Amino acid sequence: MTPTKLGTVLGGTRVFPPPVWLMRQAGRYLPEYRAVREQCADFLDLCARPDLAAEVTMQPISRFDLDAAIVFADILLVPHALGLEVCFVDGEGPRVEVVSSGAAVARLNREGAARRLAPVGETIARVRQELSGDKSLIGFCGGPWTVATYMAEGAASSDQLAARLWAYRDPSGFGALIGLLSEVSADYLIAQVRAGADVLKIFDSWAGVLPDAEFDRWVVDPTRRVVEQVRTACPGIRIIGFARGAGARAGRYLAATGIDALALDQAAHVAAIRDHLGNGHALQGNIDPLALLAGGRALDEAVDGCLAAFAGLPHICNLGHGVHKDTPPEHVGRLVRRVRAAVEPGAEIG
Amino acid sequence: MTPTKLGTVLGGTRVFPPPVWLMRQAGRYLPEYRAVREQCADFLDLCARPDLAAEVTMQPISRFDLDAAIVFADILLVPHALGLEVCFVDGEGPRVEVVSSGAAVARLNREGAARRLAPVGETIARVRQELSGDKSLIGFCGGPWTVATYMAEGAASSDQLAARLWAYRDPSGFGALIGLLSEVSADYLIAQVRAGADVLKIFDSWAGVLPDAEFDRWVVDPTRRVVEQVRTACPGIRIIGFARGAGARAGRYLAATGIDALALDQAAHVAAIRDHLGNGHALQGNIDPLALLAGGRALDEAVDGCLAAFAGLPHICNLGHGVHKDTPPEHVGRLVRRVRAAVEPGAEIG
Repeated sequence: MTPTKLGTVLGGTRVFPPPVWLMRQAGRYLPEYRAVREQCADFLDLCARPDLAAEVTMQPISRFDLDAAIVFADILLVPHALGLEVCFVDGEGPRVEVVSSGAAVARLNREGAARRLAPVGETIARVRQELSGDKSLIGFCGGPWTVATYMAEGAASSDQLAARLWAYRDPSGFGALIGLLSEVSADYLIAQVRAGADVLKIFDSWAGVLPDAEFDRWVVDPTRRVVEQVRTACPGIRIIGFARGAGARAGRYLAATGIDALALDQAAHVAAIRDHLGNGHALQGNIDPLALLAGGRALDEAVDGCLAAFAGLPHICNLGHGVHKDTPPEHVGRLVRRVRAAVEPGAEIG
Repeated sequence: MTPTKLGTVLGGTRVFPPPVWLMRQAGRYLPEYRAVREQCADFLDLCARPDLAAEVTMQPISRFDLDAAIVFADILLVPHALGLEVCFVDGEGPRVEVVSSGAAVARLNREGAARRLAPVGETIARVRQELSGDKSLIGFCGGPWTVATYMAEGAASSDQLAARLWAYRDPSGFGALIGLLSEVSADYLIAQVRAGADVLKIFDSWAGVLPDAEFDRWVVDPTRRVVEQVRTACPGIRIIGFARGAGARAGRYLAATGIDALALDQAAHVAAIRDHLGNGHALQGNIDPLALLAGGRALDEAVDGCLAAFAGLPHICNLGHGVHKDTPPEHVGRLVRRVRAAVEPGAEIG
C-alpha cells in the first residue's frame, strides 16, 4: 500500500507543497454540517450515529479535497463512556458531571467504556471505505490532563482552576483520575487504529497553563504512557501530539512522550523549536484560526508566513487551533488553494 | 540614597534571599482591603481616592513586610481616562465601552487623559511618604496590546477575539489605537515616576495568544516605544516587563523592548530562558498562584522549586500571575517566611 502524503511526512520525509488538513474542519461553519446536525437530538446523538458521523467526517474532504479526514467525535466522549453525564449546550460549551475526589474516580465505569465508545470505531470503518487511499484517516482522543480539567470543573474554564487546585491538594486522588484516563484513552486509540485509523492525534489543549514540574507530571508522563501502550498494540502507528501553549517546552514534550510529530499552536515560536529539534521531526501547524476567519490579505500573509516558517522541514499545514464557527467556508477553500499553489520557499534550506 | 533590594537586583546584582513581592498583593483576599473597599461606591471610586488607595497599597506591606509596594490602580484606568465608560461588576469582571474602528479611536479624549489619571500620582506621592526607604514603590500600566483587547471586546475574554480580528481586518485602525495607548501609557508612567515610583512594570497579560509576527507588531514594538519615551524623560528608571505566555519568545521581548527585567508566568520554561539570556538580566517570578491558594506542602514545594530554578541569577521572587481572591492571607505569610528563611541553593552556580 502506498503511504499517504500525511504518512510520508510523519515518517520524516519532506513533501512540497505540504499536506493540509484543519483542526475542526468538520463542524458548524459548514452549512452541510448544520443540515445533518439538525437531524440529531444533540451533539452526542450525532457522535453515536456512525452513518451521520461518517457523512460529517467526509464533508470537508468532499468540499476542499483536504489530505486527511479526522473522525467526527469529541474529547468528552471518554468521560461520557465512563458513565458521566455530558451535554453540549449550544452557545455555552460543554457540561460534564463533576468528578473531584479519588472516591469518585473509583466509582467510574471503566468496564463499560469500550462498549460506549464503539460507535466511533464504526464511524472510522465507514469513512475508511469511502476515503481514497491517498488520504489519511485520523483517530484522536484528548490528553488525560485536558480531559481531567473538564471533569474537575464540570465545564470549560479559562484557567482550569478546579483541576490545578485538586492536583495540588490531593495529588494521589487526581493522579488516579489521570491514570484511569490514560488507560481508557490508550484502549480507545487502539480501537480506532483497529477500525481503520492510520494516524492518531492527542489533543492536550490546556497543557500550557501548568508550571514545569506539573507539566511533566500531568501532561508528559501520562502521554508517554498512552503512546507506549498504543505502540505495543499497534507497532508503527503514527502519532501527532498537540500540547497547546507548551511554548519552550514543546521540544521536551516531543522527545519525552515518543510521539512522531508536534502540532504547534499559532503562538508557538517555530524558529526556536526548529533550533531545538533539528530538522528530522515532522511539525504540524500553525496558521492563526482568526486569520482564516478574517480572510483576504491577512489570510494570504498567514499562509505564506506559515510555509516560510516551516520551509525545509517535514511539515503538515494546519491551523494553530480549531476552525472558528463563524468562518466563511470560502476562506478554507482559499487557504487550501494557496498552499497547493505555493512556490517552494527556501529550497536551499532543505 | 541607598538602592532598594529590588533596585539592586534590577541593576543586575544578585541578592539572596531574593526580594519578594506579589502581583495583586493588595486586594480582595485581605479582610482589611474589603473593609476599605466597602467605604467606596465602586472600584473606580477607590482608585480615585488617593487617601484610601494609599492605605490599600500599604496593607500588604504592613502585614507581610514585602520588599515592594505596587500602587493600587488598574490597567483599565487608561481607557477610562480616555473618556470611555468603564465599570467593574463584582464577580463578572470589567466592562469597557467598546472601541472598534479608527474613527472611534480618533474621538478618544487624548487631552484629558493626564488629568483623569492624576489621582494615581497622588496615591504614589502619599505611599512614598509612608514607605520605608529600603522598599521599592512600583508604578505600572497595561501593555498597549492587552489594554486594547479589553477596549475591542468591551470585557475580558478567553481568546481576545475582537482585538485579534480587528488587527487582521483593519491593521491601520487598530494600529491607531495601539499608537494612542502607547503614547498615553508612556505619559502615565512618566507621571508615576515624577510622583515617586522608583520601579515601573508593564503588564501585557494577553501577549501569549499572538502569532510571531503579530507578537512583534502589537506587543514588542509598542512596548519598545513606551520604554524609549519613558527613558528619555526619566533616565535610569528600572522597568519590568510581563508578556504573559510569551513562551520561547520571552528572550526576544526582553532584548527588543529594552526593559531591565522579565517577569515570568508560572508556565515559563525558566531553564530555556536562562540558556537564552545568560545570567546578566534580572528575572521575576514565577510561583503558581494556585500553589499559593492551595497552601501547605504544595506551596512549600513551589517556593523551593522557584528558588532552585532561579538559583545564581538576579531574581525577584513573585507569583506567575496575581494572587487569587480566595487565597487565605496566612498562605502569603508562609510564602514570605519560607523565602526569607531559605538556605542558599546551588551557591556554586552564581
